[in-house]
Amino acid sequence: MADLPEKSAGLIDWYLAVVEAAELSDKRYPVKGMNVWTPYGFAARRALDGVIAGALDRSGSVAVEFPTLIPRTEFQKEKEHIKGFDEQVYWVTRGGATPLDVELVLRPTSETAMYPIFALWVRSHRDLPLTVYQIVNTFRYETKTTRPFLRVREIHFIEEHTCQVDEAAATARVGANLASFAEMATAFALPYVPVRRPEWDKFPGAFYSVGLDIPIGTGRTLQIGSIHHYRENFSRPYGIAYESATGEQRWVHQTTFGLSERLLGAIVAVHGDQRGAIFPSAIAPYAVVVVPIVGGAQGDAVRLYATGLVTELRASGLRVHLDDSDDRPGAKYYRWELKGVPLRLEVGRREMEGRTVSWADRLGERGTLPTDGLPAAVRDRLERFDAALRARADAAFQTQFTPAATLADLAGSTTVRYLPWCGQEACGHAIETAIDGALLGIPETPLPMVTEPPGACVGGADHGPTRWALAARPI
Amino acid sequence: MADLPEKSAGLIDWYLAVVEAAELSDKRYPVKGMNVWTPYGFAARRALDGVIAGALDRSGSVAVEFPTLIPRTEFQKEKEHIKGFDEQVYWVTRGGATPLDVELVLRPTSETAMYPIFALWVRSHRDLPLTVYQIVNTFRYETKTTRPFLRVREIHFIEEHTCQVDEAAATARVGANLASFAEMATAFALPYVPVRRPEWDKFPGAFYSVGLDIPIGTGRTLQIGSIHHYRENFSRPYGIAYESATGEQRWVHQTTFGLSERLLGAIVAVHGDQRGAIFPSAIAPYAVVVVPIVGGAQGDAVRLYATGLVTELRASGLRVHLDDSDDRPGAKYYRWELKGVPLRLEVGRREMEGRTVSWADRLGERGTLPTDGLPAAVRDRLERFDAALRARADAAFQTQFTPAATLADLAGSTTVRYLPWCGQEACGHAIETAIDGALLGIPETPLPMVTEPPGACVGGADHGPTRWALAARPI
Repeated sequence: MADLPEKSAGLIDWYLAVVEAAELSDKRYPVKGMNVWTPYGFAARRALDGVIAGALDRSGSVAVEFPTLIPRTEFQKEKEHIKGFDEQVYWVTRGGATPLDVELVLRPTSETAMYPIFALWVRSHRDLPLTVYQIVNTFRYETKTTRPFLRVREIHFIEEHTCQVDEAAATARVGANLASFAEMATAFALPYVPVRRPEWDKFPGAFYSVGLDIPIGTGRTLQIGSIHHYRENFSRPYGIAYESATGEQRWVHQTTFGLSERLLGAIVAVHGDQRGAIFPSAIAPYAVVVVPIVGGAQGDAVRLYATGLVTELRASGLRVHLDDSDDRPGAKYYRWELKGVPLRLEVGRREMEGRTVSWADRLGERGTLPTDGLPAAVRDRLERFDAALRARADAAFQTQFTPAATLADLAGSTTVRYLPWCGQEACGHAIETAIDGALLGIPETPLPMVTEPPGACVGGADHGPTRWALAARPI
Repeated sequence: MADLPEKSAGLIDWYLAVVEAAELSDKRYPVKGMNVWTPYGFAARRALDGVIAGALDRSGSVAVEFPTLIPRTEFQKEKEHIKGFDEQVYWVTRGGATPLDVELVLRPTSETAMYPIFALWVRSHRDLPLTVYQIVNTFRYETKTTRPFLRVREIHFIEEHTCQVDEAAATARVGANLASFAEMATAFALPYVPVRRPEWDKFPGAFYSVGLDIPIGTGRTLQIGSIHHYRENFSRPYGIAYESATGEQRWVHQTTFGLSERLLGAIVAVHGDQRGAIFPSAIAPYAVVVVPIVGGAQGDAVRLYATGLVTELRASGLRVHLDDSDDRPGAKYYRWELKGVPLRLEVGRREMEGRTVSWADRLGERGTLPTDGLPAAVRDRLERFDAALRARADAAFQTQFTPAATLADLAGSTTVRYLPWCGQEACGHAIETAIDGALLGIPETPLPMVTEPPGACVGGADHGPTRWALAARPI
């Protein structure tokens, strides 16, 4: 059990070591960037999907599933979109030995799979809004270096697609998605910034795009999802029209909201420490691990006692693992800290005789609890742990943004920079060159640490009024 | 709302009409045999997956997910297997415009994706048994006529794969899978026969295969899943070996257990009637629909009353739909009968004033219930409904098997036939020719309707001892 590389010395080396040592993903599958969801990693993904699906259900979205393969003819209907994905898609060209009449693309995202069918489903204003989501895998022929969860070729993806009566209703859905994500982010304990992307960096075919960006240290951010307003850009080529209450034919306005397995990578990267991963309780494969200390004379009685507690905790709906392996207690503590379990319960002879359990959470708090009413007490401890994890992440978030007033300021940035920007593309590119990264765009909501009005545009010449924008280095 | 074709006049026409009218699947997607999981159909699938995953979890299986794409090199390691699938797989040959160095196959099933990794996971007898499952989609380039759920090109699939210490342990896992399926089949209310397939019809690469066959009338059966014993047939080419407790290197013995979306098709086909689908409560997208009768003076009060009941029922964990659309009550009854909802609750002024609800189940039983303790009373009604549905299906099952004593007997069969068979392939093929269908094989457990010992082989010459076998027409 080798030590992890120093997180502070280099995030990626530490991250790759944690993902492997905690057995979250197996990247030895013989296709680069297509990884195996191991039992432990899959359990985290299932919990993540559950949180996301719950929030989407509550926001009025309905689960569906569209096919994985998209015919070339449908894929190419929206020109900007196909241009954006042309070099990144996998093509199915044969069935058995037979060349296909119409080649099929493995979905990189599902606009072009869904919208021909939306055109059949939407007829009247009574069919609107149409608000559906699916949890599927998508595929991109990624040529850059791949990293588990962060950049892969088969991507676990949650995508909502909606049709709305007009632009205002679509804008309102973007707002509802932002509110849904705020709810999810509480469960993930992840601070983030919603940022409206500049024109040159929006989703292919979008009217505008909002990226959900998570600062991960050293001036880098990770986009873990996005929300797009499409106006009529897809409904026109795909023919998604409806008859209004007054009898006119109108194009629907569309939105999408996408989240990917990068969220799991962000949770590992943001919360983890030198001892390994740290999961918030809603995402942890196990919220609780119970370790019986069975070295002494009454080992069998202790084992039985621990098993009874596990049964009681599971019956209350908690995800609990009983580590009754032959390893020494110290080895078990090491393992479950590495794997990021929020709360460990230790049960030995002393605890059994006192009808208590000893606990230690993954942030180092310790104590004892009576076994009477244990499930409620454990839930309370998990809530306190989650709150502490959020407070820690929020405090780190605050330190990761610093202002910049000139292009020269941006060189060698080790924080995310906020800077006045006039909105012109030329200034934007000058900023990107200076920071050797990306102009993320304009935050949808004011950053908490920014209290002054923006000054002159960092990009160069005076082009009129400015807004605070964010710039960061690539991951 | 057109009437359905007569089920008794032709199952397939009736089936296709029900699937479309009940909005279980949309087959207008522009690739043949790749259908859209609509909101209603997806809800049924989610319930189905939940029943299956629950039973697999209880049987000690652990959820994972392997990549969708398999390199040609891995796919071709087991020769029988590749021969069986060669004409049926989709090939990915390009990424963007770049031809792939190693072409990739869309998994038709995951032996060849999983087993190279199993070879890394299994080292010692302490790693065994390895028992994992995944719920994914698989792909087959189907050239026959496609039918929603029954024969499709993108197939929703549940597949368990295990590695065992020896042949006996693998045989025991086959038995555990049979027991798990019996548990699931109770939830589906589907009578079935597990049948050991003849040599010429086993899974490519298997030592033996057990099909799970459901009679669907007129002498036809539907295979909705299968369990396979692989012995060492895959572990040798994929190198899955372990060190035994005594220090020897041994090949693992493997098993698989697969179930597909055909189960949903079988549920529709077996239970449905002239008014539409009928779902057992565990699979129904909604177990209960509540219809407020709001025509009279106190419409708003009734609506409020009904909403309160729905909230209470949902809080108890039931899947409940409130139909507060503007349609007349009769139209609502028609719709939810077509869609197969087990239990309808009707709430009007009379019910509100008496603090009752009127109920009608999908098999035609009716009555009233007090609203005090409604959730428990509704669960009780659903259990009675499920029991009645099972009893009805069991009674129909009994009538679908008749004996055959000669080849001439088999011509024009409109039931599944049980017949003495000597086990020889020549006799098997003679039987298949005579019935114009398949020799399903030998039932794993005696058929309840068969009490006599088998006589002389139906296939022709006397080849020695016989066993009861089943033969059926293709769907």
